[in-house]
Amino acid sequence: MQKTHTSQKEVIKSEKILTGDRATGPLHLGHFVGSLQQRVKLQHQYTQTILVADMQGLTDNGHNPQKVSSNILNVVADYLAVGIDPLKTTICLQSKIPALAELTMYYANLVSIARLQRNPTVKNEIASKSFGQSIPAGFLTYPISQAADITGFNATLIPVGEDQLPMLEQTNEIVRRLNHIAQADVLIECKPLLSKVSRLPSVDGKNKMSKSLGNTIMLGSNEKEISKAVKSMYTDPMHLNINDPGQIDGNVVFTYLDAFHEDDTYIKDLKAHYKAGGLGDGTTKKILESCLQDVLKPIRERRSLYMNDKAQLIKILKQGSEKSQEEANQVLQKVKSAFGLNLF
Amino acid sequence: MQKTHTSQKEVIKSEKILTGDRATGPLHLGHFVGSLQQRVKLQHQYTQTILVADMQGLTDNGHNPQKVSSNILNVVADYLAVGIDPLKTTICLQSKIPALAELTMYYANLVSIARLQRNPTVKNEIASKSFGQSIPAGFLTYPISQAADITGFNATLIPVGEDQLPMLEQTNEIVRRLNHIAQADVLIECKPLLSKVSRLPSVDGKNKMSKSLGNTIMLGSNEKEISKAVKSMYTDPMHLNINDPGQIDGNVVFTYLDAFHEDDTYIKDLKAHYKAGGLGDGTTKKILESCLQDVLKPIRERRSLYMNDKAQLIKILKQGSEKSQEEANQVLQKVKSAFGLNLF
Repeated sequence: MQKTHTSQKEVIKSEKILTGDRATGPLHLGHFVGSLQQRVKLQHQYTQTILVADMQGLTDNGHNPQKVSSNILNVVADYLAVGIDPLKTTICLQSKIPALAELTMYYANLVSIARLQRNPTVKNEIASKSFGQSIPAGFLTYPISQAADITGFNATLIPVGEDQLPMLEQTNEIVRRLNHIAQADVLIECKPLLSKVSRLPSVDGKNKMSKSLGNTIMLGSNEKEISKAVKSMYTDPMHLNINDPGQIDGNVVFTYLDAFHEDDTYIKDLKAHYKAGGLGDGTTKKILESCLQDVLKPIRERRSLYMNDKAQLIKILKQGSEKSQEEANQVLQKVKSAFGLNLF
Repeated sequence: MQKTHTSQKEVIKSEKILTGDRATGPLHLGHFVGSLQQRVKLQHQYTQTILVADMQGLTDNGHNPQKVSSNILNVVADYLAVGIDPLKTTICLQSKIPALAELTMYYANLVSIARLQRNPTVKNEIASKSFGQSIPAGFLTYPISQAADITGFNATLIPVGEDQLPMLEQTNEIVRRLNHIAQADVLIECKPLLSKVSRLPSVDGKNKMSKSLGNTIMLGSNEKEISKAVKSMYTDPMHLNINDPGQIDGNVVFTYLDAFHEDDTYIKDLKAHYKAGGLGDGTTKKILESCLQDVLKPIRERRSLYMNDKAQLIKILKQGSEKSQEEANQVLQKVKSAFGLNLF
């Protein structure tokens, strides 16, 4: 009885958190530092839903859908491996929640093409991709689908980086338009939960982290891969001899040590030594490698257990999706009523 | 037993017909001549579905949704009044078929924004509306939603006018792309059933038929309204005196007589008389009015009976929508499998 009571207390929280990932690849240390660690904490404080966004993943992979379909369970295994608890966090699959597609269709009538083309986040993403003149309709309009995700789950607090703020503004515009049509507060505006965590650079210190560029460490990377990645890590190119004074800024090894090493004082001393000269990159890399091996070993082992029990992953995803569909259906009924579509 | 057998024989047909109407107003004589009469015939030869397109109606009425919601049952009553038989034709409501929204989302990844902007039908429609720079996303992308309707119901034969051919081409492009991704014939291309019926002009002979312009005769118009409309009908502006020779081309009264009067020989003689001079517009209008009153009286009466039994209309729409959702769901499962999304 006592246990039930505690668990109820944990679940009753006023703000609802929504995060998610496009299922286009297994997750890496960038996801871990930038978001997953935070989500593990958030699940104790808030009602949290995590959406595996397979449909959004298709918006720029329509002609290469296996990039999405083959990664759905990878992403779920990554969640569980880092400590997302399906009893505390609802993990659901976008394509199993038809109400989200329906909401997207209704919201698409409240957003102009010109407004979507002005969205700075989408503009930047389009610029970074090689669509040419062939931007898929699904890609330009994905902020509408995101608005459906956020409002469909009644999410009020969205952990984002600064660059994602225009997406939330787009969502709130839709919320206000719909509420204006309904002359009632049918939908709730969302607020950003701005993350203070800085972005983890890629191993090469230059390009965006990408599995295909080989400049990242995946949550499932084995010991050898981790070792290889750390050895190839970008440091200070001017630090040619051990006795030379070394640069900390832009030195990926130290950025990773800041992010992963538990002993801040030790790292502070290490930095001072490196700056003064006399500390080689081989040594700092050994310290980092040992640290990363420690962090990743239990994650990799849990991940492997989950990947060997796909039926379990599917069960978690199925239950989460059913729960989420129920919730999104209630929102959908309200939105349809706002449009007068409640004949039967 | 004999009866059941006959009815089965009627239902088993190789081509499937899909038509539909945006539920933005009750239907008028233009719909009757241009499409409804044909549908009444088609239901005996083919498996036919008629879609009440409430969601498409919202694509340019997002801020005035009651224009759509208040007309759904009007349109269904119009269908039944002209002789669409719900035992022969499946009548369904777009917003009650979530699989259509889902298909639309998947197809949106296979169509570029540039391609939609080049669609001549949509281009013309955009030019004729006052969107300015604010074309709703739902409106620009509605050809994708139409592709979902057509493919979702496995429709193979679409009765259209020449101006709608680009919409079918758009659908077939999506079909080919999806089949290419699936490396299988998942979806079927559709063919147009080009209508030979000429378009009925509006009463004023100039503008597009529109209830708000008052230049049309609705299927539910009462005797007085019909009489008033015929009296105001555009004839030959140069036919000032009865004895003057009159012009048949562009004379709306004669176009309507051609469309509705059953006795072709009589109308041929009437035209000769009018051309030669000696036949006044008052007389031709009386003949037309009598003819239209005869055509519309039984339609109006049946329409009124149906509108007084909304529960019956809803029941028909509900049954048709459930049947259609079942069919569209099967197509959706195939499309999701083509994208590899068939985990559970």
